Formats: sequence, structure tokens, C-alpha cells
Amino acid sequence: MPAANDRVKQILSFYASDNVGVKTNLARMMNHGALAGTGKFVILPVDQGFEHGAARSFAPNPAAYDPDYHYQLAIDAGCNAYAAPLGSLEMSADKFAGQVPLILKVNNSDTLAKMDHPCSAITSSVTDALRLGCSAIGYTIYPGSGARNVMYEELRELVLEAKEVGLPTVVWAYARGEGLSKQGETAIDVIAYAAQISCQLGAHIVKVKPPTDYLEQPEAKKVYEKYAIPIKTMAERVRHVVQSAFNGKRIVIFSGGEARDTAALLEDVRGIAAGGGFGSIMGRNAFQRPKPEALKLLADVMDIYRKAG
Amino acid sequence: MPAANDRVKQILSFYASDNVGVKTNLARMMNHGALAGTGKFVILPVDQGFEHGAARSFAPNPAAYDPDYHYQLAIDAGCNAYAAPLGSLEMSADKFAGQVPLILKVNNSDTLAKMDHPCSAITSSVTDALRLGCSAIGYTIYPGSGARNVMYEELRELVLEAKEVGLPTVVWAYARGEGLSKQGETAIDVIAYAAQISCQLGAHIVKVKPPTDYLEQPEAKKVYEKYAIPIKTMAERVRHVVQSAFNGKRIVIFSGGEARDTAALLEDVRGIAAGGGFGSIMGRNAFQRPKPEALKLLADVMDIYRKAG
Amino acid sequence: MPAANDRVKQILSFYASDNVGVKTNLARMMNHGALAGTGKFVILPVDQGFEHGAARSFAPNPAAYDPDYHYQLAIDAGCNAYAAPLGSLEMSADKFAGQVPLILKVNNSDTLAKMDHPCSAITSSVTDALRLGCSAIGYTIYPGSGARNVMYEELRELVLEAKEVGLPTVVWAYARGEGLSKQGETAIDVIAYAAQISCQLGAHIVKVKPPTDYLEQPEAKKVYEKYAIPIKTMAERVRHVVQSAFNGKRIVIFSGGEARDTAALLEDVRGIAAGGGFGSIMGRNAFQRPKPEALKLLADVMDIYRKAG
Amino acid sequence: MPAANDRVKQILSFYASDNVGVKTNLARMMNHGALAGTGKFVILPVDQGFEHGAARSFAPNPAAYDPDYHYQLAIDAGCNAYAAPLGSLEMSADKFAGQVPLILKVNNSDTLAKMDHPCSAITSSVTDALRLGCSAIGYTIYPGSGARNVMYEELRELVLEAKEVGLPTVVWAYARGEGLSKQGETAIDVIAYAAQISCQLGAHIVKVKPPTDYLEQPEAKKVYEKYAIPIKTMAERVRHVVQSAFNGKRIVIFSGGEARDTAALLEDVRGIAAGGGFGSIMGRNAFQRPKPEALKLLADVMDIYRKAG
Amino acid sequence: MPAANDRVKQILSFYASDNVGVKTNLARMMNHGALAGTGKFVILPVDQGFEHGAARSFAPNPAAYDPDYHYQLAIDAGCNAYAAPLGSLEMSADKFAGQVPLILKVNNSDTLAKMDHPCSAITSSVTDALRLGCSAIGYTIYPGSGARNVMYEELRELVLEAKEVGLPTVVWAYARGEGLSKQGETAIDVIAYAAQISCQLGAHIVKVKPPTDYLEQPEAKKVYEKYAIPIKTMAERVRHVVQSAFNGKRIVIFSGGEARDTAALLEDVRGIAAGGGFGSIMGRNAFQRPKPEALKLLADVMDIYRKAG
Repeated sequence: MPAANDRVKQILSFYASDNVGVKTNLARMMNHGALAGTGKFVILPVDQGFEHGAARSFAPNPAAYDPDYHYQLAIDAGCNAYAAPLGSLEMSADKFAGQVPLILKVNNSDTLAKMDHPCSAITSSVTDALRLGCSAIGYTIYPGSGARNVMYEELRELVLEAKEVGLPTVVWAYARGEGLSKQGETAIDVIAYAAQISCQLGAHIVKVKPPTDYLEQPEAKKVYEKYAIPIKTMAERVRHVVQSAFNGKRIVIFSGGEARDTAALLEDVRGIAAGGGFGSIMGRNAFQRPKPEALKLLADVMDIYRKAG
Repeated sequence: MPAANDRVKQILSFYASDNVGVKTNLARMMNHGALAGTGKFVILPVDQGFEHGAARSFAPNPAAYDPDYHYQLAIDAGCNAYAAPLGSLEMSADKFAGQVPLILKVNNSDTLAKMDHPCSAITSSVTDALRLGCSAIGYTIYPGSGARNVMYEELRELVLEAKEVGLPTVVWAYARGEGLSKQGETAIDVIAYAAQISCQLGAHIVKVKPPTDYLEQPEAKKVYEKYAIPIKTMAERVRHVVQSAFNGKRIVIFSGGEARDTAALLEDVRGIAAGGGFGSIMGRNAFQRPKPEALKLLADVMDIYRKAG
Repeated sequence: MPAANDRVKQILSFYASDNVGVKTNLARMMNHGALAGTGKFVILPVDQGFEHGAARSFAPNPAAYDPDYHYQLAIDAGCNAYAAPLGSLEMSADKFAGQVPLILKVNNSDTLAKMDHPCSAITSSVTDALRLGCSAIGYTIYPGSGARNVMYEELRELVLEAKEVGLPTVVWAYARGEGLSKQGETAIDVIAYAAQISCQLGAHIVKVKPPTDYLEQPEAKKVYEKYAIPIKTMAERVRHVVQSAFNGKRIVIFSGGEARDTAALLEDVRGIAAGGGFGSIMGRNAFQRPKPEALKLLADVMDIYRKAG
Repeated sequence: MPAANDRVKQILSFYASDNVGVKTNLARMMNHGALAGTGKFVILPVDQGFEHGAARSFAPNPAAYDPDYHYQLAIDAGCNAYAAPLGSLEMSADKFAGQVPLILKVNNSDTLAKMDHPCSAITSSVTDALRLGCSAIGYTIYPGSGARNVMYEELRELVLEAKEVGLPTVVWAYARGEGLSKQGETAIDVIAYAAQISCQLGAHIVKVKPPTDYLEQPEAKKVYEKYAIPIKTMAERVRHVVQSAFNGKRIVIFSGGEARDTAALLEDVRGIAAGGGFGSIMGRNAFQRPKPEALKLLADVMDIYRKAG
Repeated sequence: MPAANDRVKQILSFYASDNVGVKTNLARMMNHGALAGTGKFVILPVDQGFEHGAARSFAPNPAAYDPDYHYQLAIDAGCNAYAAPLGSLEMSADKFAGQVPLILKVNNSDTLAKMDHPCSAITSSVTDALRLGCSAIGYTIYPGSGARNVMYEELRELVLEAKEVGLPTVVWAYARGEGLSKQGETAIDVIAYAAQISCQLGAHIVKVKPPTDYLEQPEAKKVYEKYAIPIKTMAERVRHVVQSAFNGKRIVIFSGGEARDTAALLEDVRGIAAGGGFGSIMGRNAFQRPKPEALKLLADVMDIYRKAG
């Protein structure tokens, strides 16, 4: 890995109260791949097999039924890390040992059950992360769900347990549940709020969806309007989310959302980069394309972040 | 046990991140019985006494009230393994020590209680499996149940605990619950999804029911149709399930379903074998017949798999 | 204790996978009292104070308010064992140390609370059983209750814990709960099913109520009729229950049910004995009578079993 | 594995107080290899690298520097088991998973240190044995050493720990130490005594050196002479050692001793077989020869035991 | 880190029975620094402050009194790893997080005490290694010491504990003690034996001193002479040590020994490289020189290994 440059050191300084192990693993991700040393992130996450089923996830590009495919894609593209549930890592981690930092997604939800409140199941552990050589764990919370307390409390315990053995935690913050409208799930006030909650819960890296300019909560709406918080462009909204995540002192990355056309996707990424977002976590948009196209897309995305540095 | 041939070695290589103990026990099952060395499986499971009551299970062939009967049947037929709940193994394991690999079924459900959400009770432990000389544990999940999280989390802990002492885990993946229609329980999209979930949860061997060509989930239906995934014949459907289980890199076996006529049963098995299924787990269809007929049926099934090799 | 005769040895051989401690304690009960060496059991259980209140239990024979009374009754009658909750044993065990094998009933339920699902509380432990010199623990399950999983899982852990220190477990299997009609609680299909479940959960001795010829579950009814399983007489029904308990290879004993007239009671016992039942566990019918009558009744019951040997 | 024949079942019956797991692993060794089903043993042990250094052990046949060599030799020769210290198993167990039963030698001694009293160091654990898929652990005691208590007490704890997880223990009983003359280390009274001690400490299999007709202890000498215990031939001496190991109810196997000429070696084996010894554990005499010669020797040895059956 | 090349993958394959975490950390060291991807090692160890005192260690180059100095030296030189006791890592690890793989030396010995038998004290733990973000632990054994058993047993527990959390173990194998002459400490038979012992104890990387052609043990001498094992040149001796470490399937690295002139040192390194040694671990010879000279020396050493690849 290249010597960490000043930006990497600055980011690590935001995590001063964490132990050296946690910082080392954050550095491992920041010092790996095509964006090594820039403090920017492009992560490949593949939990859609669990979340939506194999066919819905992999039929567009059948090579992706094989867990090895994603490892190799993340390595070839020069991603900072590859994130997946236990089974996928179990299957392929040995073959690719040491070639790309891993994030073990320790909770997951499928779409077969009808739950009273959205709430993922814990599907792996910090012990698994260590034995599989991972650099972080990942956990999904659904702010807005009536099962919020279950998730926040599980997360708190996992963050602490992971921290003690030197592993940072990536929080997938997806607002969802009885408390929110469908449109509200990506409202700027809600996304910013979810990012703040994640930081307060001890997240080292926060993942949110790109926010829209919709405002969900009436009380929030009043404030955003009174203080004329700029939320018109993606760059403005991202800047506000990053500000809401401890004023830029926690790493916030943005998902690509549903698979769609390349131009729109890159436009979003340019907005994220312009707004000071730390990077993208891009799953379906990458692995559902033929590999050459996926590599091209990821390279373009990395290029945008590199230039935004 | 015979020297592992190339197919057995190849299958073991799919479990590279597991310890040698787990691989040794997988090998013990693959190197035992009439299908030794082929990488194919025919397993005798007898948990119907617990699941449906003794009379419903054993009245058709009263010799089967005696747990010894099933052990001897599995041995005489040359099955790769015999799976049962704690009590049956306690009763007979000593008498047949070392004669057939055992799978301890560690959770079970009866049909006396009316549960809010389908969810089996844990009825034995990894400690029991070790003291009884078992080669694996077995656990049932009901994807589609509102108690999904309870089961996934119990399974996760058991898989890890078993793994550490060298025991693989067989997952009985039975989609069931409020989230699914009756017909949906064996829908191809649901069965494939249940297989994927099992793999992600760390299953070493996945057991599903033979799928029908019905499609349950609207979002999945669109994808199956758009990509024209072939699901008309049993072979095609099995091929898709196997693909959904890490592209053929996890062992997937198929139950025989409700007891019925031999011709239909063997036709299904031929489809499973043609589609690349790893084998059958056949309970009622075996032990509810008179022993000579059961031996004949199991021999015929094994023959189909041997030729498909 | 007298040398175990052939029947005792045969019964012990059914518990081959248990350690010598468990077998020794089973032997202690089988080699004690008036039925020593026959493999038959008459046990005095007194948990009605907890289950129904003291007055409902002991007012008919006020001497029975004193726990010493029951010990002395079990000793004088030559019972194989005396079973009671913690408090009763604490009170009197010291005085009668070594005079009769004890079974510590480790869970109990009162009739004051209204539970969502019937489920007893754990009221003592394996540690208590050891320090009180007991020969077994006892545990009640309610198959049919929505709290089934709680009970099965507690039982599983207790069986394992007890086993490791050489104590067998007696399971009181009382079908009860939302899943069953009142009549169904003693239906032959349900009682046989409850016996099977108890055996699968690792019970060394199963206690059920004498079954009626009613059939509760439609699916079971079909099977009983199709295979013409004889259930008309008590002897036939008991034979079926014993068959359902691992084909006679687990000890199954029968309660006397509600207190009633002696003739009917003895008629039932004759049916149990004729059907191959291992014995009776008789509480209220014994201790609610004046002691001389109780001794007479128990002697008559023992006589029936001795002759049935 | 072949169905256990009567002799295997008889031997297992000697271990009736052990759990099924222990018996299963004993059966695994007895049902494996060229002597499968005979109740006879030929085991390949390779701990000489640790005990005497690599060059002294492997220079005569340099292929043997590679741990894989010994696995393959044990497999090709059809040995019942292969025994080695941790490092050798770590190195090669994954490659040969499931192909030969393994015995993890959990203590070892080197010849670099000058110890006050001979006493091996514990070099691996029951946990290691489970994760490496072993069928037994092995432990060396030096009866005659002033450090006897350390060894006997360590062994006792290991035997219990191993037993609980279903692993039998093989005891290497090498009389040695201040209490004995050099000649006395293989004296018939001493070897027979060491075998008895091993059995009393809970050994499932005892390994001793072939005894000479020398008598070391004066008190013992008197008795051997008074009762005219036959010790002139190897067969007589082996018969006495086997008798001293619970009258033939514990498995006793004999080492080949220092590497030497084939005729003398086979003569010894014939004596061991004639005297009712359960088999041989043959290290240097096997792996220090060129592989074809080693295979020939082991085949000849197995032949002798097979015929003695 | 660069994609692992074929040699790195081959070396990792020697550790097949280890979990992915252990392999990942081995890969981290092999994929870091100037020798990344070659499978060769140059490690900077600085435990001399503890072992010999600060002045004896650092007076020749006073900048080296500051622990930061050594980190920066290891980073600037492109070493694969930096090894030190707890205090040094505590002091500087936070500042350099993620810039060089760390080995926590978990036992140490000073030269103030007069011990009965040489034996280091445990000075830190696996927990420390995790919270400090280390890639391995290091442990010193003194084969030849009367305290051998204490050390081997401590090591065994640490190897297992570290392994379970994904950390490999580096064993410093220094033959020393009552059993050996001073000259014998670096005798070829003793060094080769110490390497074998370390491998058997589960070492992932073994560190020994460069051996001389002296033969210490009479029994060994006979064998070396009988089989004409070549030990005249450093390359021959290193080849024999590597062979003694599982035939080249464990990583063996060589210390630089006492500080001395550059030419002699590089001559040794050339011999080590020519004999197939995996690399050098070079402390005093590096940090006691002025930094520019140290960097020059380390670059020259790395150059030799790179060319030997």
C-alpha cells in the first residue's frame, strides 16, 4: 500500500478516540485500489441475492450467480472494498485472500416474509469477520421502523464488539417503516437525519441513498425553509448530508440506487463528488452489466472522485 | 472409506474457508455408502414422528415405530447419512456406532400447537452431536415466516458453533408463512430464493422441495419472464436452483415430498439428476414401504444418480 | 438394592447411549420398593399444592398438609420413587435421606395467573437435584401450547445438563393449549403424539394421561382409520402409546387422572398393565384418602403390575 | 466403511461406559484401511521430527521431510490411522481431508533440552483435534519419571475433555526415568505395569514397546517366578501384557522400536500377533525405507495380523 | 496492495488448514513494501531495548531511542513488517496507522535477572495485537532450555488463540540452555532441529540464526556424516534448514546476528538467498547505523532477495 497521504491522515484524525486497529482497517480501505491515498471510496456491495433473490439479482448477467465473480470484479476494478453477507465471503474469501479489503454484512433481510416492522436478521458475527480476514463489518438500520430499538441496540453492541478487536463498522442507513411515506424514504431531511443517527450510533462509515429535494417532516420543512438550506441540486443536498454527519468528520458514501442508465448515474456521482461526498457504493449498477461495461463504469466513477479530490 | 476421487475433492474445494474438521465430515458422508466417491447423496431423514406424530408416520409400516429400523434401513440401503432428532439417535446410535454417518436434526416442530408464525423449537445441541458421534447438524428455516429473524439468528449461532468443532450444517429450507401462498411454497422463484438465503446463512448442504413452475412474487415473475429463465421441466428448474446456490458450489439436495407412487417419484428424481441436483433426501417414501420395497426404491434412486454422475 | 434381573437389564439396554450415572439412577428406581426388579413403576407425585393450591389438594386428608406425610406414604407403600417440587423436598429430604428415590419436579405452574399460552415456570435446578440426593428431575411440557418452543428448549438444556451429572429426566407430557380442544387433550392420537415428542426430546421416562378413544386431528384420524389401529379398549390404546414411544424402548407411565372411585381406577390400571404400560404415577388418588386406604390402593395397583410382568 | 463385523462390535462393547462419539471414532479406525473390520491395527506414527530432529528422522529417505509424504504413505498402505504432532497435521490435513483417520499427538519432547525429569510438553489441544477432523488424541506418559504426576494429571484432564467431545485417547506408555535402569525400560514386568497404568488412567488404546524377558523390579521378579508366568517368547510376553491391560479388554498395540532389519521386525510382529496383540504402530521402520519397501513391509505386517485374526 | 502473484498464492497454499484471516495477514506482509509480491521478506525487529537495555541498543545511533524512529525506518525502507514489544507499538502505532504491517512480540527477556533456565516473560497478548491493528504476533522459544515445556505450552495456547482471530504467529527459535554448548546454539543440526520444532508447534513463520557448519549432538553428527548432508556453505546449510521446515512449506527467515561489517553481512544474505531462505529479519545491523546507511543496507539486502526470486 502507498504511504498514506495527508488527506488519509486527516480523515483518520477524525477517529481519534478509536483504537489503532480500527484506524488501521480504515487506512487499509483508503490505501487500497484505484483511489488509494485519496480518501475517496468506491465499494462493491453484493447482498442483493439475499435481499431480493438470486434471479432478480443475477439473471441480467448470469456470470454473477458465482460469488467468485464479484470478488474478481472488485479486484479488477480497483474498488476500496467488497461487501457481502457471510455465505458469499465463505465461498470465495480463501481463493482471493489478501487481494481486496472485505466488509462482512452482518445483518440481512429477505423479501419473502411479511414482517410487522422492517428489521433485518443478524446473519453473521464479529468472530466471522475476524476469521475471514475482513476489514470492517456492515449493518443495516431502518430509521422509521417500529423495530428501531431492536436494530439500534443490536448495532450498538456490534459496534462496541467490533471496535475492541480493531474493526470499524459501516452502517447502511435506510429510512423505512410505518413512520415514513414512500417518497419520504429519500427525502433530504430524512436522509440527513438518518446520517446523523448513524454517526451518533458509532458508525465509522455511513451509507445513504442519494437524497431528493422532497421534505418529509413538517417540523423539519419549516426549518429548512426558514433558514433557506440549499437543497435544490444533488451537490447541495450531499453537502447538507455530509454536514449532518458531524460536519464532514464521518465518512459518508452514497448508493447508486436501482439499476438505470449510465448518464443519469454518472450525473448523480458528479453531484455527490461536487457536494463533498466521500464516495459511492455501487452494486446492481455494476454487477448487472457485462463485466467490460461494469469496469468502464467503475473506472469513470473513480475518475470523477479522483478529480474531485 | 475409499480414497476421495476427483469429484469429491472438487466439491470439498468449494468449502475452502472451512476448517479441516468440517471438510472431513463432508468427506465422510460423500465417501460412505452405495454412492461413495460420486459426490452424489441419498440421505434417509426420519423426523416425521416429531413433525406429524408416530401413527401418521409409522402406521403404514409398523416396524418403523422402532428407531433401530431406520438405522438398519439406512445402512442396508447404503445411504450417505441418516438424519433424525435427538431421541431417535439417543435410542439407537450406540448399537450402530460407526456404521453410517449421522445428522442430528437440532430443531423440530410438531403439529399440535398453533403458532403465530411458523418456527421450530431447538431440541438438541452441538454438544449432543459430538457426544453422539454425528457428522453434521441439521436445522430447519421457514423463509416467509414472520419469525424469520429468530430462525436465521439461531441458525447463525449454531453454524458457527458447529463449524468450530468441525461439524457442517445441513439446512432444511422450507418456505412457509404469512408472506406466501400455499402454492408459493414450492414456486420456483421461492425455492431458488430459499436456497440462496440458506447459502448466505452459511449452510454447507441445502435441502429444498422439488420446485414447480409456478412463480409467486410479482417482482420475480417479471425477471423470470424478461430473461426467459427456463423453468418448464424439473431438470430446468433444478438447474436454476443449483445455479442460485452459488452457481453449483454448494451441495443442494431435494426432498421426495409427500408419499406417492413410485413411477412419479423416480420421474422426479430423474429430473433432479438431469438438472445437476446433488441428490435426494427421502423419508416417508422410503420408510413407509415394506423394507424390501424401500430398499428397491432407494437402489433405483441411487442408480439414477450414479448414472447422472 | 437387589441385583437387577433380566427385565431391568433389558430396559437399561434401551438407554445405551446414556452414561452409567443415568443408568444407575434409572436402576435405583427400578430396584426399589415393592416392584423392585420387575421393571414396573408406581410413583407417588405430589405437586398439586403448587398446581391447584393447598386446600384443594390436602383438605380431604389434612395430614397431607405436612410434606413429611408424603415421604412416609411413598416409603410405606413401597413406591419406586417420590416426586415433588423443590420446597417439599427441601422440607423433608433430610429426615428420610436414602429411604426412597426422589424426583425433583423442576418446573411448575399455578392456577392464579392467566397466561397467554400455558407454560410452567422453572422452579428448581439440576444443582438442587444433586444437593438433595435426587435420582431424577421432572419437567412438564404442554404440547399444543403457543409457548411450546420455550418449553422444548428449556427441557433440552435441562436434559443435557442433568445427563452430564448422571440424572435421568422424567417428562410430564400434558397436551394443552390453543391448538387443541378440551376433549383433544386426552385423545389417543394426541397422547401418542405427545409421547413421541417427549421421547424425541430426550425423556428417559414419559408420563401421560390415560388416553380416550377420541381422535382430535383430522389428518391423524384418516390414518388411524385407514390402518385400523385398534383403540377401543384401554389396553389397546396403551399398547399404541407404548409403541409410539420408540416401540416400547422408553419407559411410559400413566397418571391416575382426577380422583375418583377405586373400582374405575383399578379398571384403568388393569388396562394399562394389559397394554404393556410401565406403571402408574398416582397422586391425588393416593394422598387424598386416609392413609390405610391409600396403602391398600397402592398395594392393589402394584399387585396388578406384578402379575402383568 | 464396511459394516462393523462381530469382532469390531465385541471390541466396542469393552468401551460401554463411553459415549457414542468415542465409540464412533474407535469404529472409524477399526473400519478403515486394509485391516478394516478385523479389529487389528497398523498405525503410522510420525513424531520423530520433533522427538529426534528432522535429519535424524528423514535423511535416510529425504522424501519424508515433506509432511505430505507420510499422509500418502498411510493412505497407500491402508493403515488404520496416521498419528503426528500439530504442525504436520496443520500442513497436510486439508489436502487429504477424509482419506485416513488422524491421531493428533498432543504432547511432545525434543532431545535438545536437559530436563530434570523426562516430561513432554503439551503442544496441541482437543480443540485442535476437532478443527483438524481427528479421530483421536495421543499422549505420552513416562512411568518411572519423577515428573510422573504432572503427566498423569495432564492426561486425566485431556482424556475427560476429549471424551466429552467424542474423541478417544491413545496413550504412548514409555517407561523411563530415574526409577528405572535402561534395560528396565523394556522389561516385561515394567511394560506390563505401564500398560496397566495407562488403562487405569482412561486410555482407550495403549501403545507400548515390545517387552524383553528381563525382570526389573525385585518384588515383581519374585511373583513372576513363583507363579511361573510364561515370558520366554515374544508371544508369551505379549499375551501377558494384553492380560495386564484389563484381560484383553483394552486395545494394546506395539511399537516397532529402532529401525532394523526386516526379518527381525516381522519375527517380532508374528510374536505380537500370536500373543493376541491388537496391532503395531510402526514409524521409522516404515518411513525411513524407500516407499516401495515401506509399502511391502506394511503389507506383510498387515498380512500377519489378518491371518492371526 | 498489489494483486498477489503466483508465488504468494503458492506460499498461502501451504497454510491450507488455516482460516482466511490468517492467510490474509500473511498476504498483507507478503504484499507490502519493496518486496511486495515476491514471497520474500525483510522485517525490521526492534526488541533489543528490552533484551539488552536502551543504551546498549540505541547509543550507537541516538535517534533510535525514539520508537517513532523505527516505524519510519521500516516504512522508508519498504520492509514487509515491523516487529516490536508492546510499549514501542503503543507509543507509535497510532501515528503510523496503516503504513506498515506490525508484529507484536508477545514475550520478552531482559538480561538483568539470572534465571534458572532461560525463559522469556509474556509481555502482551492477542487482544493487544488486535487493538493495535497488528498482522501477526511473535514469540521466542529457547529449545535446549530446561524451561522448554513452559514455553512450548504458552506458545501452543497463543498460536491457537491468535489463529482463531486471524493472526499468524512468528516464532523466534533460539536454541539455548543447559542442554547445549555455546557453539551448539548455532550448530547446523541444532538450528535445523529448532526450525522443525517451531513448525511442529504451529509457527507460521520461523526465525532462526544463520547456522554454522558445527555439529553439536553426537547422534545427529553420525547421521549427517552417514548421509553426507551438505553443510559446508551458508547456502547448503540454509537449504537444509528450509528442508527441515516441512520441505520448504513453512516460511523461514534468518536474523542478521550480531552487528558487524556490511560486506560479511551481505555475504551471509547472499548465502541465505541462494539456499532458498525466505528472507531476513535485521535489527541491530539496521537501526544502529545512521539512517541513510541503514536504508542503503536494507535496499541492498532486498535487492539480493529480489534477484534470487
